[in-house]
Amino acid sequence: MFNYRHHIFVCVNQRPAGHPKGDCASKQSRAVFQKFQEETEKRQLWGSVAVNGTTCLGPCATGPTVVIYPEGVWYGKVGVDDVEEIMDQHVVGGTPVQRLLLQTLVDEAQQ
Amino acid sequence: MFNYRHHIFVCVNQRPAGHPKGDCASKQSRAVFQKFQEETEKRQLWGSVAVNGTTCLGPCATGPTVVIYPEGVWYGKVGVDDVEEIMDQHVVGGTPVQRLLLQTLVDEAQQ
Repeated sequence: MFNYRHHIFVCVNQRPAGHPKGDCASKQSRAVFQKFQEETEKRQLWGSVAVNGTTCLGPCATGPTVVIYPEGVWYGKVGVDDVEEIMDQHVVGGTPVQRLLLQTLVDEAQQ
Repeated sequence: MFNYRHHIFVCVNQRPAGHPKGDCASKQSRAVFQKFQEETEKRQLWGSVAVNGTTCLGPCATGPTVVIYPEGVWYGKVGVDDVEEIMDQHVVGGTPVQRLLLQTLVDEAQQ
């Protein structure tokens, strides 16, 4: 039971305003969470897809952070406008969105 | 990066008192969440294990609910006193704790 094909976790952590680490909620991650729910509903994917908000997932500087299991694909800087692409290309199509991968963002920051 | 061997998600959802669905937080799931963090710290497993609280995971009646990815093992009725067993037997030992599996709880309820 609860053998989801994709379980989407969106960091919705909020820190006090001005906290040096920042947080995903102040970067609209709660709207991202809601958008994933809406797009799952729109595609009638409940049953094979679950969507949850979480406490701090760790990489705050590149938030909003999203991780999708069981494949363990991590995304950063996910905006509301990116959600449909992740749903279509990754969740439905099976191919992660390369430009939003946390690893891609870290590699770009080190160049 | 962030290729955790086990990512533990604990439902910490709270509903208003008296809500008919109940919730995991009123069944001490936040203490369960904290205990998973403490036991991960005690075993020096940060790096290979992550622990997060989540919004409602779904099976409220059998909460506190815990799901561990990437294996996708779901637990129900997890108390603070169960956490060390899950850490030792499942997270370290690789064998899920049968008596707490959500499927076991559902099967027992149907007998």
